[in-house]
Amino acid sequence: MIHAAILAGGRGQRLWPKSRRRSPKHLLPLLSDKTMLQETVSRLEGVANDENIYIVTEEGQQRTICEQLPDIPKANILVEPEGRNTAASIGFAAAHMSKRDPEGVMISLHSDNWVGEVETFRRILSDAAVVAEKTGRLGTVGITPSYPATGFGYIHVGERIEVDLPTTFWEGQEFVEKPDRETAEQYVASGEHFWNGGMFIWKIAAILDAIREHMPRLYEGCLAIKETIGTHAERSTLARVYGALEKIPIDTGVMEKTANIFVAKGDFPWDDVGSWAAMENHYPADSQGNVAIGQFEQVDCHNSIIIGDDTLIAAVGVSDLIIVKSADAVLICRKDRAEEVRDLVAKLSSSEKFKKYL
Amino acid sequence: MIHAAILAGGRGQRLWPKSRRRSPKHLLPLLSDKTMLQETVSRLEGVANDENIYIVTEEGQQRTICEQLPDIPKANILVEPEGRNTAASIGFAAAHMSKRDPEGVMISLHSDNWVGEVETFRRILSDAAVVAEKTGRLGTVGITPSYPATGFGYIHVGERIEVDLPTTFWEGQEFVEKPDRETAEQYVASGEHFWNGGMFIWKIAAILDAIREHMPRLYEGCLAIKETIGTHAERSTLARVYGALEKIPIDTGVMEKTANIFVAKGDFPWDDVGSWAAMENHYPADSQGNVAIGQFEQVDCHNSIIIGDDTLIAAVGVSDLIIVKSADAVLICRKDRAEEVRDLVAKLSSSEKFKKYL
Repeated sequence: MIHAAILAGGRGQRLWPKSRRRSPKHLLPLLSDKTMLQETVSRLEGVANDENIYIVTEEGQQRTICEQLPDIPKANILVEPEGRNTAASIGFAAAHMSKRDPEGVMISLHSDNWVGEVETFRRILSDAAVVAEKTGRLGTVGITPSYPATGFGYIHVGERIEVDLPTTFWEGQEFVEKPDRETAEQYVASGEHFWNGGMFIWKIAAILDAIREHMPRLYEGCLAIKETIGTHAERSTLARVYGALEKIPIDTGVMEKTANIFVAKGDFPWDDVGSWAAMENHYPADSQGNVAIGQFEQVDCHNSIIIGDDTLIAAVGVSDLIIVKSADAVLICRKDRAEEVRDLVAKLSSSEKFKKYL
Repeated sequence: MIHAAILAGGRGQRLWPKSRRRSPKHLLPLLSDKTMLQETVSRLEGVANDENIYIVTEEGQQRTICEQLPDIPKANILVEPEGRNTAASIGFAAAHMSKRDPEGVMISLHSDNWVGEVETFRRILSDAAVVAEKTGRLGTVGITPSYPATGFGYIHVGERIEVDLPTTFWEGQEFVEKPDRETAEQYVASGEHFWNGGMFIWKIAAILDAIREHMPRLYEGCLAIKETIGTHAERSTLARVYGALEKIPIDTGVMEKTANIFVAKGDFPWDDVGSWAAMENHYPADSQGNVAIGQFEQVDCHNSIIIGDDTLIAAVGVSDLIIVKSADAVLICRKDRAEEVRDLVAKLSSSEKFKKYL
C-alpha cells in the first residue's frame, strides 16, 4: 500500500506579510482558490488514499489543517512538539506508517510546492513506488530543470535503471548543494543534473533501515514513538524524544550518505514558490509587465508584482517592485531582492512592537 | 475692522489617498494634530476675530468644517453651489463682508498652506491691513523665496512704499507665471521677485471696485448675492448667479490687470504642501534619510517618505519612494514624480470601479 507524508512545518517567511505564524504559506490559497496544502493532497488522488495520507505539522496549525482537509482522518495529522527539520518529520511519519503497514511504500512531499502537469506527476510517483518496492532503493524525483536555478540543490544521476514503466529511472550518483550561476548552467547543459525538489519514495522498512544506519538517535526515537502510538504515553514519549533529535534535513542526514539511491525523472513543471518573485510565473502579466491580483491602478508602472485585496494599490512611476498587502501590513520590495524578505521578518521578530505582525 | 476669507474649496488631489472628496487636504491633520484649516484659523488669532472669519467652501464639507471650527459662527461658513475658482470665492466673501462692514478691510487666505513663523505672519498681515486702509491699493504678500521654485507664480516688486511699520512694502510691478528653472534662479538672485502664495489684503470696497472694473459679471453677481443675504431668496439667488460666474483665479481676473498693487514682504517660512514630496520639509528624517509616520520597518530602504497608520509598512531594498496608506488605499510613487498623483486621481475618476476610492 502507498502511504504519503506531507511535510507542513515550514513558515514561508519570504512570503510575509501573507504568510504568518498562524497561517503560513502552505495554508494559503496562493495560486488557486485551494490552499497549497489542499492542492498537494488533491495531487495525490489515485496515488494514495486519504486514509493513508499523513500531515506532519506543528502546534497551532492542527485545527486549520483539519478544517482544510476534512477527508483526512484526524489521527493522521501528526503534530511535532517542535520543528526538528525534515529527517525527524519523515522518521515520525515513518514510525506511524510502519505501525499500520510495515511492508508499505512511503512517499514524502512538501506541502507548499506547485506542480504543473498533475497527471504526469501522479504517473511518476506511482511508477517510483513500483521501483522502490522492487529494488528496495531509496528514491527521489529529479525535476528536469527549466532554467539554471541557483536556489535549489541538484541530483547528479548515474546509470539508467531498466524498468518496463513509462517513467525514466537512474541510479542516484550524488546530491549537490545550491550551485553558483556558472555551475548551474553546466548542470542544465549536462542533462545529468536535476533539481532536488524534496520528493522521496521508498519502502517504509527501507527508510527506517537507512535511518538506523545513518541517524541512530532518530531511529531510537522512531522506535519509541512507534511503541507508544495509541497509548496514554504517546504524547509524553513524543515530547521527551523529539527535543533530542538531530535537527537536519533528510538529504544530508540520510540520502547523501547512501549509495542505494534511485532517481525518477520528473519532467513536469514545478516551482517551490519560494518568494513573491515566483508569482509572475503563475499569473499573466498585463501589457506593461505588471502582474496584479486585487484592486490595482497605475500611472507608468512596469514589471511589478502586486498582490492586494479590496484595498486599492496605486502605483506611480515605479517599476520592478513587489507590493503585497495583507490585513495589517504592506510590503514594498525590489523584485530582485525578494529573498531579503526573510531578513525583514528576522528584524520584525527581534522587536517587541512588531511581533504582532508575524 | 479686519475680516478674513479662508478659501477651503481645493481638493488636494496630489495628496491622495489621504485627501478625498469628502475629506480634502485642508480638513486633514497633515502636519500637526490640527487640520490645515484649523491651523489657518489659529494663525489669524490677534489679526481677525472669529466672528469676522469666513470660510468659503462647497457642499458636503460644511458639517465637518462646523465641527472643526466650533468658534466660527455657522453663518460664516459660505457654501458655494459649485467651485468657480478664486475670483468668485473672493467676490462671494466680499459681498458678505460688505453687507456687515462696507468700510472694513479684507484678508484672503488659502486654507491648506503651512506657515513657519506665525508671529511674523501676523505682524505682516496686520501691517498690510494698515497699508490697505491708508492707500486703497490691493495688497498681496510676496513670500521671500527659499529656493528657485518652478511650481509657484512670482510677484515682481517695484518702488518701496515708505511706511512707518516694521514690515517692508513695495508697489507691485508684475505678476508672473510659474517660471522655468533658469528663470526661477534669476528671480531668486534678483531680490525683486517673491512667491505669490495667494494671500491678499485690501479694503472690501477696493476689491469690489476692482471687480466692477475688470470682472463686471462677477460684480453683478456679488451685488445680487449681497442684496438677498438673510432673505428667503438667498439660496436661490446664489444658485442662479453662481453657475454663470467666470471661472478664473483672482490673480488673472483682477490683480494682473490692476496697476494699483502693493506687496508686503513675507519673510516667513511658507509651504503650500502641494504634494507628498513636501512632507520631508516638515518631519525629521532618520539616519537613512527616511521620513516615516506610523508603523514602519525596513531593510536597506533610503530617502523615502512613509505616511502610514497602524498598518505596518515594510520596505526592502527600495529608495526615493513615497508610500502612503489610507483606510482603503495604498499609494506607491517615485518621489520625483509626486505631481503625477494628480494623473492617477484623474485615471481613478474615469473608472466606475475606482470612484469609491476618490
